[in-house]
Amino acid sequence: MREVKIIGITGGSGSGKSTIVRKISEVCSDFVFIPQDNYYKSASYISNENITAFNFDHPDAFDMELLEEHLSRLKAYEPIEMPLYDFVHHRRMDDTVTVQPRPLVIIEGLMVLHSVKIRDLLDLKLYVDTPDDIRFIRRLKRDIAERGRTVESVCNQYLEVVRPGHFNFIEPTKIYADLIIPEGGYNENALSVLIPFVKELSG
Amino acid sequence: MREVKIIGITGGSGSGKSTIVRKISEVCSDFVFIPQDNYYKSASYISNENITAFNFDHPDAFDMELLEEHLSRLKAYEPIEMPLYDFVHHRRMDDTVTVQPRPLVIIEGLMVLHSVKIRDLLDLKLYVDTPDDIRFIRRLKRDIAERGRTVESVCNQYLEVVRPGHFNFIEPTKIYADLIIPEGGYNENALSVLIPFVKELSG
Repeated sequence: MREVKIIGITGGSGSGKSTIVRKISEVCSDFVFIPQDNYYKSASYISNENITAFNFDHPDAFDMELLEEHLSRLKAYEPIEMPLYDFVHHRRMDDTVTVQPRPLVIIEGLMVLHSVKIRDLLDLKLYVDTPDDIRFIRRLKRDIAERGRTVESVCNQYLEVVRPGHFNFIEPTKIYADLIIPEGGYNENALSVLIPFVKELSG
Repeated sequence: MREVKIIGITGGSGSGKSTIVRKISEVCSDFVFIPQDNYYKSASYISNENITAFNFDHPDAFDMELLEEHLSRLKAYEPIEMPLYDFVHHRRMDDTVTVQPRPLVIIEGLMVLHSVKIRDLLDLKLYVDTPDDIRFIRRLKRDIAERGRTVESVCNQYLEVVRPGHFNFIEPTKIYADLIIPEGGYNENALSVLIPFVKELSG
Protein backbone atom coordinates (compact mmCIF):
# COMPACT_ATOMS: atom_id res chain seq x y z
CA MET A 1 0.00 0.00 0.00
CA ARG A 2 1.24 3.50 -0.84
CA GLU A 3 2.19 5.63 2.13
CA VAL A 4 -0.02 8.69 2.47
CA LYS A 5 0.87 11.78 4.53
CA ILE A 6 -1.79 14.22 5.70
CA ILE A 7 -1.03 17.85 6.55
CA GLY A 8 -3.66 19.76 8.57
CA ILE A 9 -3.74 23.56 8.36
CA THR A 10 -5.89 25.48 10.82
CA GLY A 11 -6.25 28.98 12.29
CA GLY A 12 -8.93 31.61 12.76
CA SER A 13 -11.12 33.19 10.12
CA GLY A 14 -8.97 35.48 7.96
CA SER A 15 -5.69 34.09 9.31
CA GLY A 16 -4.29 33.23 5.87
CA LYS A 17 -4.88 29.44 5.88
CA SER A 18 -6.24 29.15 2.37
CA THR A 19 -3.58 31.53 1.02
CA ILE A 20 -0.95 29.07 2.24
CA VAL A 21 -2.66 26.29 0.30
CA ARG A 22 -2.88 28.47 -2.82
CA LYS A 23 0.79 29.45 -2.62
CA ILE A 24 1.81 25.81 -2.16
CA SER A 25 -0.33 24.76 -5.11
CA GLU A 26 1.37 27.35 -7.33
CA VAL A 27 4.65 25.42 -7.07
CA CYS A 28 3.40 21.90 -6.33
CA SER A 29 -0.06 20.84 -7.37
CA ASP A 30 0.33 17.12 -6.84
CA PHE A 31 -1.75 16.70 -3.69
CA VAL A 32 -5.35 16.15 -2.64
CA PHE A 33 -6.89 19.30 -1.20
CA ILE A 34 -9.75 18.92 1.27
CA PRO A 35 -11.39 22.17 2.44
CA GLN A 36 -13.09 21.47 5.78
CA ASP A 37 -15.81 23.96 4.70
CA ASN A 38 -17.11 21.25 2.36
CA TYR A 39 -18.02 19.23 5.44
CA TYR A 40 -20.43 21.80 6.93
CA LYS A 41 -23.79 20.29 7.78
CA SER A 42 -26.84 21.62 5.96
CA ALA A 43 -28.59 24.58 7.55
CA SER A 44 -31.15 24.96 4.80
CA TYR A 45 -34.09 25.40 7.15
CA ILE A 46 -32.75 28.84 8.13
CA SER A 47 -33.64 31.88 6.03
CA ASN A 48 -30.87 34.16 4.79
CA GLU A 49 -31.97 36.94 7.16
CA ASN A 50 -31.48 34.65 10.15
CA ILE A 51 -28.28 32.99 8.95
CA THR A 52 -26.48 33.97 12.15
CA ALA A 53 -28.80 31.53 13.97
CA PHE A 54 -26.75 28.70 12.46
CA ASN A 55 -23.42 28.77 14.20
CA PHE A 56 -20.76 28.11 11.57
CA ASP A 57 -18.15 28.65 14.27
CA HIS A 58 -19.05 25.70 16.45
CA PRO A 59 -17.57 22.20 16.01
CA ASP A 60 -21.12 20.80 15.79
CA ALA A 61 -21.57 22.68 12.49
CA PHE A 62 -19.20 20.21 10.84
CA ASP A 63 -19.85 16.59 9.90
CA MET A 64 -16.70 15.49 11.70
CA GLU A 65 -17.59 11.78 11.38
CA LEU A 66 -17.72 11.99 7.58
CA LEU A 67 -14.50 14.02 7.49
CA GLU A 68 -12.75 11.48 9.69
CA GLU A 69 -14.01 8.61 7.53
CA HIS A 70 -12.84 10.35 4.35
CA LEU A 71 -9.38 11.13 5.75
CA SER A 72 -9.06 7.51 6.90
CA ARG A 73 -9.94 6.31 3.42
CA LEU A 74 -7.49 8.69 1.73
CA LYS A 75 -4.84 7.52 4.23
CA ALA A 76 -5.58 3.96 3.06
CA TYR A 77 -5.12 5.17 -0.54
CA GLU A 78 -8.80 4.80 -1.39
CA PRO A 79 -10.99 7.30 -3.33
CA ILE A 80 -13.73 9.33 -1.65
CA GLU A 81 -16.89 11.17 -2.71
CA MET A 82 -16.18 14.64 -1.28
CA PRO A 83 -19.29 16.71 -0.46
CA LEU A 84 -19.70 20.27 -1.74
CA TYR A 85 -21.27 23.16 0.14
CA ASP A 86 -23.57 25.89 -1.13
CA PHE A 87 -22.82 28.98 0.97
CA VAL A 88 -25.62 31.00 -0.59
CA HIS A 89 -28.31 28.54 0.54
CA HIS A 90 -26.10 27.19 3.37
CA ARG A 91 -26.65 23.55 2.61
CA ARG A 92 -24.80 20.56 1.25
CA MET A 93 -25.13 20.25 -2.52
CA ASP A 94 -26.60 17.14 -4.14
CA ASP A 95 -23.45 16.68 -6.20
CA THR A 96 -20.22 15.29 -4.83
CA VAL A 97 -16.69 15.20 -6.26
CA THR A 98 -14.81 11.94 -6.71
CA VAL A 99 -11.36 12.46 -5.20
CA GLN A 100 -8.64 9.98 -6.11
CA PRO A 101 -6.01 9.18 -3.47
CA ARG A 102 -2.54 10.75 -3.66
CA PRO A 103 0.59 10.41 -1.49
CA LEU A 104 -0.09 13.86 0.03
CA VAL A 105 -3.37 15.21 1.42
CA ILE A 106 -3.84 18.76 2.72
CA ILE A 107 -6.89 19.42 4.90
CA GLU A 108 -7.55 23.08 5.68
CA GLY A 109 -10.19 24.65 7.91
CA LEU A 110 -11.29 26.28 11.14
CA MET A 111 -11.62 23.15 13.27
CA VAL A 112 -9.07 20.75 11.79
CA LEU A 113 -7.39 20.19 15.15
CA HIS A 114 -10.59 20.01 17.22
CA SER A 115 -11.32 16.26 17.06
CA VAL A 116 -8.77 13.90 18.56
CA LYS A 117 -9.67 11.25 15.97
CA ILE A 118 -8.86 13.65 13.14
CA ARG A 119 -5.69 14.92 14.87
CA ASP A 120 -4.49 11.33 15.13
CA LEU A 121 -4.73 11.00 11.34
CA LEU A 122 -2.52 14.04 10.70
CA ASP A 123 1.21 13.72 10.07
CA LEU A 124 1.84 17.47 10.39
CA LYS A 125 -0.33 20.00 12.24
CA LEU A 126 0.05 23.66 11.28
CA TYR A 127 -1.58 26.59 13.08
CA VAL A 128 -1.72 29.93 11.30
CA ASP A 129 -1.52 32.69 13.90
CA THR A 130 -2.52 36.17 12.78
CA PRO A 131 -3.50 39.15 14.99
CA ASP A 132 -7.25 39.28 15.67
CA ASP A 133 -7.85 42.75 14.23
CA ILE A 134 -6.03 41.87 10.99
CA ARG A 135 -8.13 38.70 10.72
CA PHE A 136 -11.35 40.67 11.20
CA ILE A 137 -10.41 43.19 8.51
CA ARG A 138 -9.67 40.39 6.02
CA ARG A 139 -12.97 38.70 6.83
CA LEU A 140 -14.91 41.94 6.50
CA LYS A 141 -13.50 42.59 3.03
CA ARG A 142 -14.08 39.00 1.90
CA ASP A 143 -17.65 38.70 3.17
CA ILE A 144 -18.65 41.98 1.54
CA ALA A 145 -16.95 41.21 -1.78
CA GLU A 146 -17.64 37.48 -2.11
CA ARG A 147 -20.67 36.73 0.01
CA GLY A 148 -22.76 39.87 -0.50
CA ARG A 149 -23.01 40.73 3.20
CA THR A 150 -23.47 44.18 4.72
CA VAL A 151 -20.92 45.72 7.11
CA GLU A 152 -23.46 45.55 9.92
CA SER A 153 -24.24 41.88 9.31
CA VAL A 154 -20.51 40.98 9.21
CA CYS A 155 -19.86 42.88 12.47
CA ASN A 156 -22.85 41.32 14.24
CA GLN A 157 -21.98 37.80 13.14
CA TYR A 158 -18.36 38.36 14.14
CA LEU A 159 -19.20 39.60 17.64
CA GLU A 160 -22.00 37.10 18.27
CA VAL A 161 -20.51 33.85 16.95
CA VAL A 162 -17.20 34.14 15.06
CA ARG A 163 -15.23 35.76 17.88
CA PRO A 164 -16.57 33.55 20.71
CA GLY A 165 -16.11 30.49 18.48
CA HIS A 166 -12.52 31.52 17.80
CA PHE A 167 -11.56 31.83 21.45
CA ASN A 168 -13.59 28.80 22.57
CA PHE A 169 -12.79 26.30 19.82
CA ILE A 170 -9.98 27.44 17.51
CA GLU A 171 -7.34 29.30 19.54
CA PRO A 172 -7.24 26.49 22.17
CA THR A 173 -6.19 24.00 19.45
CA LYS A 174 -2.92 25.92 18.93
CA ILE A 175 -1.33 23.71 21.61
CA TYR A 176 -1.64 20.73 19.26
CA ALA A 177 0.34 22.41 16.48
CA ASP A 178 3.72 21.15 15.33
CA LEU A 179 4.49 24.53 13.80
CA ILE A 180 2.93 27.95 14.22
CA ILE A 181 2.98 30.20 11.16
CA PRO A 182 2.55 33.92 11.84
CA GLU A 183 0.54 35.70 9.12
CA GLY A 184 -0.12 32.59 7.05
CA GLY A 185 0.23 32.70 3.29
CA TYR A 186 1.60 36.25 3.41
CA ASN A 187 4.71 34.91 5.19
CA GLU A 188 7.08 34.14 2.33
CA ASN A 189 9.90 32.92 4.58
CA ALA A 190 7.64 30.33 6.21
CA LEU A 191 6.48 29.20 2.76
CA SER A 192 10.10 28.80 1.66
CA VAL A 193 10.50 26.25 4.48
CA LEU A 194 7.21 24.45 3.88
CA ILE A 195 7.53 24.08 0.12
CA PRO A 196 10.60 21.76 -0.01
CA PHE A 197 8.86 19.56 2.59
CA VAL A 198 5.63 19.44 0.59
CA LYS A 199 7.53 18.68 -2.61
CA GLU A 200 9.35 15.82 -0.89
CA LEU A 201 6.08 14.32 0.36
CA SER A 202 4.18 14.70 -2.89
CA GLY A 203 7.00 13.41 -5.08
CA MET B 1 30.24 35.44 -4.94
CA ARG B 2 28.57 32.41 -3.37
CA GLU B 3 25.12 33.01 -1.96
CA VAL B 4 24.99 32.52 1.82
CA LYS B 5 21.78 31.97 3.81
CA ILE B 6 21.65 32.61 7.54
CA ILE B 7 19.08 30.95 9.82
CA GLY B 8 18.58 32.48 13.29
CA ILE B 9 17.18 30.30 16.08
CA THR B 10 16.07 31.95 19.32
CA GLY B 11 13.85 31.27 22.34
CA GLY B 12 14.11 31.31 26.12
CA SER B 13 16.55 29.43 28.31
CA GLY B 14 15.69 25.73 28.19
CA SER B 15 13.36 26.10 25.21
CA GLY B 16 15.14 23.48 23.10
CA LYS B 17 17.06 25.76 20.72
CA SER B 18 20.36 23.93 20.85
CA THR B 19 18.63 20.55 20.59
CA ILE B 20 17.22 21.68 17.24
CA VAL B 21 20.70 22.48 16.03
CA ARG B 22 22.02 19.13 17.28
CA LYS B 23 19.20 17.20 15.57
CA ILE B 24 19.77 19.08 12.31
CA SER B 25 23.51 18.40 12.50
CA GLU B 26 22.84 14.66 12.89
CA VAL B 27 21.45 14.53 9.35
CA CYS B 28 23.19 17.50 7.72
CA SER B 29 26.47 18.75 9.08
CA ASP B 30 27.43 20.99 6.20
CA PHE B 31 26.82 24.39 7.80
CA VAL B 32 28.58 26.95 9.96
CA PHE B 33 27.25 26.94 13.52
CA ILE B 34 27.56 30.13 15.54
CA PRO B 35 26.44 29.90 19.20
CA GLN B 36 25.57 33.43 20.36
CA ASP B 37 26.93 32.43 23.81
CA ASN B 38 30.44 32.72 22.33
CA TYR B 39 29.80 36.43 21.96
CA TYR B 40 29.21 37.14 25.66
CA LYS B 41 31.37 39.99 26.95
CA SER B 42 33.91 39.19 29.65
CA ALA B 43 32.70 39.48 33.24
CA SER B 44 35.95 38.32 34.78
CA TYR B 45 36.01 41.03 37.46
CA ILE B 46 33.07 39.30 39.22
CA SER B 47 33.73 36.47 41.68
CA ASN B 48 31.86 33.20 41.28
CA GLU B 49 29.77 33.89 44.40
CA ASN B 50 28.51 37.12 42.91
CA ILE B 51 28.02 35.83 39.39
CA THR B 52 24.37 36.90 39.40
CA ALA B 53 25.67 40.51 39.48
CA PHE B 54 26.58 40.09 35.80
CA ASN B 55 23.34 39.94 33.91
CA PHE B 56 23.71 37.25 31.24
CA ASP B 57 20.06 37.84 30.33
CA HIS B 58 20.40 41.41 29.12
CA PRO B 59 21.23 42.36 25.53
CA ASP B 60 24.19 44.44 26.83
CA ALA B 61 25.86 41.20 27.97
CA PHE B 62 26.54 40.35 24.31
CA ASP B 63 29.06 41.90 21.97
CA MET B 64 26.38 42.50 19.35
CA GLU B 65 28.69 44.64 17.21
CA LEU B 66 31.22 41.82 16.82
CA LEU B 67 28.43 39.30 16.14
CA GLU B 68 26.93 41.56 13.47
CA GLU B 69 30.36 42.07 11.89
CA HIS B 70 31.00 38.32 11.84
CA LEU B 71 27.61 37.47 10.34
CA SER B 72 28.18 40.15 7.68
CA ARG B 73 31.54 38.62 6.82
CA LEU B 74 30.11 35.09 6.65
CA LYS B 75 27.31 36.45 4.45
CA ALA B 76 30.03 37.84 2.16
CA TYR B 77 31.63 34.34 2.14
CA GLU B 78 34.64 35.46 4.20
CA PRO B 79 36.23 33.59 7.15
CA ILE B 80 35.97 34.85 10.74
CA GLU B 81 37.84 34.40 14.00
CA MET B 82 35.03 33.27 16.29
CA PRO B 83 35.54 34.04 20.00
CA LEU B 84 35.15 31.33 22.65
CA TYR B 85 33.67 31.80 26.12
CA ASP B 86 34.81 30.35 29.42
CA PHE B 87 31.65 29.90 31.52
CA VAL B 88 33.60 28.83 34.61
CA HIS B 89 35.51 32.11 34.80
CA HIS B 90 32.85 33.96 32.80
CA ARG B 91 35.22 35.63 30.38
CA ARG B 92 36.22 35.47 26.75
CA MET B 93 39.07 33.03 26.12
CA ASP B 94 42.34 34.15 24.57
CA ASP B 95 41.96 31.57 21.81
CA THR B 96 39.62 31.99 18.86
CA VAL B 97 38.41 29.53 16.23
CA THR B 98 38.89 30.19 12.54
CA VAL B 99 35.55 29.57 10.86
CA GLN B 100 35.50 29.13 7.10
CA PRO B 101 32.46 30.40 5.19
CA ARG B 102 29.77 27.98 3.99
CA PRO B 103 26.53 28.44 2.00
CA LEU B 104 24.51 27.97 5.22
CA VAL B 105 25.04 29.61 8.62
CA ILE B 106 22.99 28.83 11.73
CA ILE B 107 23.16 31.32 14.60
CA GLU B 108 21.52 30.19 17.84
CA GLY B 109 21.02 32.06 21.09
CA LEU B 110 18.86 34.00 23.53
CA MET B 111 18.98 37.38 21.80
CA VAL B 112 19.38 36.53 18.13
CA LEU B 113 16.34 38.61 17.14
CA HIS B 114 17.02 41.55 19.47
CA SER B 115 19.15 43.77 17.22
CA VAL B 116 17.56 45.07 14.04
CA LYS B 117 20.96 45.00 12.28
CA ILE B 118 21.32 41.29 13.04
CA ARG B 119 17.68 40.55 12.13
CA ASP B 120 18.26 42.20 8.76
CA LEU B 121 21.06 39.71 8.07
CA LEU B 122 18.84 36.67 8.71
CA ASP B 123 17.08 34.81 5.89
CA LEU B 124 14.91 32.77 8.26
CA LYS B 125 13.98 33.64 11.83
CA LEU B 126 12.83 30.80 14.10
CA TYR B 127 11.44 31.21 17.62
CA VAL B 128 11.31 28.16 19.86
CA ASP B 129 8.31 28.48 22.16
CA THR B 130 8.20 26.18 25.19
CA PRO B 131 6.09 26.60 28.36
CA ASP B 132 7.92 28.59 31.06
CA ASP B 133 7.79 25.90 33.74
CA ILE B 134 9.19 23.26 31.37
CA ARG B 135 12.00 25.64 30.43
CA PHE B 136 12.84 26.26 34.08
CA ILE B 137 12.99 22.54 34.86
CA ARG B 138 15.35 21.92 31.91
CA ARG B 139 17.57 24.81 33.01
CA LEU B 140 17.64 23.61 36.62
CA LYS B 141 18.79 20.13 35.57
CA ARG B 142 21.40 21.49 33.16
CA ASP B 143 22.90 24.05 35.52
CA ILE B 144 23.23 21.50 38.32
CA ALA B 145 24.69 18.78 36.08
CA GLU B 146 26.90 20.84 33.77
CA ARG B 147 27.70 24.06 35.60
CA GLY B 148 28.02 22.87 39.18
CA ARG B 149 25.35 25.22 40.57
CA THR B 150 23.18 24.64 43.65
CA VAL B 151 19.37 24.50 43.46
CA GLU B 152 19.17 27.71 45.48
CA SER B 153 21.62 29.57 43.21
CA VAL B 154 19.73 28.43 40.07
CA CYS B 155 16.36 29.53 41.54
CA ASN B 156 17.70 32.90 42.70
CA GLN B 157 19.37 33.64 39.37
CA TYR B 158 16.22 32.57 37.53
CA LEU B 159 13.91 34.80 39.57
CA GLU B 160 16.27 37.78 39.69
CA VAL B 161 17.58 37.97 36.13
CA VAL B 162 16.66 35.06 33.83
CA ARG B 163 12.88 35.42 34.16
CA PRO B 164 12.77 39.24 33.91
CA GLY B 165 15.23 39.06 31.01
CA HIS B 166 13.02 36.53 29.25
CA PHE B 167 9.88 38.64 29.44
CA ASN B 168 11.67 41.93 28.76
CA PHE B 169 14.03 40.95 25.96
CA ILE B 170 13.35 37.47 24.54
CA GLU B 171 9.58 36.85 24.46
CA PRO B 172 8.95 40.25 22.79
CA THR B 173 11.14 39.18 19.84
CA LYS B 174 8.66 36.40 18.97
CA ILE B 175 6.82 38.89 16.74
CA TYR B 176 9.81 38.94 14.38
CA ALA B 177 9.74 35.16 13.85
CA ASP B 178 8.93 33.60 10.48
CA LEU B 179 8.04 30.33 12.20
CA ILE B 180 7.31 29.43 15.80
CA ILE B 181 8.39 25.96 16.92
CA PRO B 182 6.64 24.61 20.02
CA GLU B 183 8.96 22.50 22.23
CA GLY B 184 12.03 22.96 20.05
CA GLY B 185 14.26 19.99 19.31
CA TYR B 186 11.85 17.60 20.99
CA ASN B 187 9.32 18.34 18.23
CA GLU B 188 10.05 15.67 15.63
CA ASN B 189 7.32 16.80 13.22
CA ALA B 190 8.74 20.31 13.11
CA LEU B 191 12.20 18.90 12.49
CA SER B 192 10.85 16.82 9.61
CA VAL B 193 9.78 20.09 7.95
CA LEU B 194 12.99 22.00 8.71
CA ILE B 195 15.43 19.32 7.62
CA PRO B 196 14.59 19.20 3.86
CA PHE B 197 14.85 23.02 3.85
CA VAL B 198 18.24 22.97 5.58
CA LYS B 199 19.50 20.25 3.23
CA GLU B 200 18.41 22.30 0.23
CA LEU B 201 20.26 25.40 1.51
CA SER B 202 23.43 23.60 2.52
CA GLY B 203 23.66 21.53 -0.66
